[in-house]
Amino acid sequence: MSEIKAYGAQSADSGVHPMSIQRRAPRPDDVAIKIDYCGVCHTDIHFAENDWGRTLYPVVPGHEIIGRVTAVGDEVSGFRVGDLVGVGCMVDSCRHCEACEDGLEQYCVEGMTGTYNGRDRHDKSVTFGGYSESVVVSERFVVRVPEKLDPAAAAPILCAGITTYSPLRHYGVKAGDKVGVVGMGGLGHMGVKFAKALGAEVTLFTRSESKVDEAKKQGADHVVVSTDADQMAAMTGKLDFILDTVPVRHDLNPYLNALAYDGKHILVGLLDTVEPPVHAGALIGKRRILAGSLIGGMPETQEVLDFCAEHDISCDVEMLDIHNINEAYQRMKDGDVKYRFVIDMATLNT
Amino acid sequence: MSEIKAYGAQSADSGVHPMSIQRRAPRPDDVAIKIDYCGVCHTDIHFAENDWGRTLYPVVPGHEIIGRVTAVGDEVSGFRVGDLVGVGCMVDSCRHCEACEDGLEQYCVEGMTGTYNGRDRHDKSVTFGGYSESVVVSERFVVRVPEKLDPAAAAPILCAGITTYSPLRHYGVKAGDKVGVVGMGGLGHMGVKFAKALGAEVTLFTRSESKVDEAKKQGADHVVVSTDADQMAAMTGKLDFILDTVPVRHDLNPYLNALAYDGKHILVGLLDTVEPPVHAGALIGKRRILAGSLIGGMPETQEVLDFCAEHDISCDVEMLDIHNINEAYQRMKDGDVKYRFVIDMATLNT
Repeated sequence: MSEIKAYGAQSADSGVHPMSIQRRAPRPDDVAIKIDYCGVCHTDIHFAENDWGRTLYPVVPGHEIIGRVTAVGDEVSGFRVGDLVGVGCMVDSCRHCEACEDGLEQYCVEGMTGTYNGRDRHDKSVTFGGYSESVVVSERFVVRVPEKLDPAAAAPILCAGITTYSPLRHYGVKAGDKVGVVGMGGLGHMGVKFAKALGAEVTLFTRSESKVDEAKKQGADHVVVSTDADQMAAMTGKLDFILDTVPVRHDLNPYLNALAYDGKHILVGLLDTVEPPVHAGALIGKRRILAGSLIGGMPETQEVLDFCAEHDISCDVEMLDIHNINEAYQRMKDGDVKYRFVIDMATLNT
Repeated sequence: MSEIKAYGAQSADSGVHPMSIQRRAPRPDDVAIKIDYCGVCHTDIHFAENDWGRTLYPVVPGHEIIGRVTAVGDEVSGFRVGDLVGVGCMVDSCRHCEACEDGLEQYCVEGMTGTYNGRDRHDKSVTFGGYSESVVVSERFVVRVPEKLDPAAAAPILCAGITTYSPLRHYGVKAGDKVGVVGMGGLGHMGVKFAKALGAEVTLFTRSESKVDEAKKQGADHVVVSTDADQMAAMTGKLDFILDTVPVRHDLNPYLNALAYDGKHILVGLLDTVEPPVHAGALIGKRRILAGSLIGGMPETQEVLDFCAEHDISCDVEMLDIHNINEAYQRMKDGDVKYRFVIDMATLNT
């Protein structure tokens, strides 16, 4: 065990502050990683402030981790000291259920072990995330980061990136497909980049007229202001696939109607009830699909990093000094970030 | 043109009574059919009574038609006089959109032409259905009925059958899959038969304890009483596919939770809003799909008839004298039919 520096929350209203945590000595299958960068996800705020009522305090958030290997256990074959690596939203799973065997550990029948606020499957300790100097993770849940990528801008690929990439790939989005992306935050702007890289014609849906220029700059071929009923009606039957990144309740019916027959509307951000309710006729009448998708499995997480290197894709980030984490949380709540804060972990020692 | 006997409704509260209608002389691509049997679908009642506010009176219902060819147009190549044939829910479509080219005419971008209460695409006349002596239909929308099938029991395959068969096939249900069927009316009992014939392990969900024995007789391996919360909770994560035939609002959440990861819940009966609302977390957390499906295309409608002949599948029917059609409607509203009324069209002349 070693004691290391971290930032965490002690209670729902404490804010995030310096603390010390213990990291285990590497087990035979473990990779020890010195953390260079950690992206800041909205989920971090939800856990720090106990929005979902299941935070185990103290909590050390952070599941978009990039760093270098400092040690490996005896059984580790895929990584060496010095390798540039990443850790995303999970650090373990049962490893023997059908989902795990399919490389979709996020759907593990026993539930994945979260990178933070999870329970280690061996010693039952609470897991601590990437707002820290270092982390120790079983090899299966570590990915290689191509040296070609800017490591800071690569951090959000491990959550925002894989979350949007996985459904595009799972449903086979391909060149010529007409793809809609709803919302343009951390997830949405990555969705636009991936859909474009896959050759799709991309329509970005945004609530605010003010984001039209920015959406085009990000690569969207078309921008629809979703609060304009005429613009929405004009989309009827036009799209093959919609990637919906909006985290709050919104009316899906106008989007379902924008899908052609066999069209798919995939939720990746909404953790609430679907209200107003969707009309079943919109699903039945054109054999449309409403579905969801959660991050991605480990093989897919490796794939998205390689895909990003191949296609020169990275997240648009604003670098953050960890001393300013609470101000960053407030700016994220205000929607004031393009598009992801990434903590420069060197600031932990300043 | 020829004047023929039919049964139809003159208004929402008239009931269904004898009337005369005109049938066109066959066009070059038409098949003229003397009707032997016509199944009675709930949709017939909805149109006769204008439940959806779009009935064009007088309406002659009936879209589960079985009969024999009496004449063919010059361009007809697939049918000869004397052939046993069927006509289902549609008699035309645009024939050139992507859906039509894919043989999925029910999803035609211009909308399919219904077998009744539709508008003929050539002369704009209102289409009349199968509660009649004969019908004239373009070859593309006529299917061959294997002589091996009992023609009366085959009639409902053209709506109740194809509606349940199509999604099972589209989503590739196969031997060993765990399939749930919700509801055991005309559609549900066909769904059980098809799922079993495809080799699936079938669980029938019913609201009433009293249907348990009947469901097992129909071939269900397991029966779950859906009003029993403990029985529903015990199904968590167990199924790969749910075929939901229920036509009225019901809570989908317990069914979604019964699906394993990548499980699919397919609505074929609900023409209303999805209320209570589904929780997006149930979709996202296990990459589950909620979708709909509408009857089937013409190639698939032929396929289901051939499948039924091969697997000795037919609908359980109660033969009906057309003079008793209004009593039959009342019994259907009371849920008092196992499982489909089929009109013996010979009774039209008695």
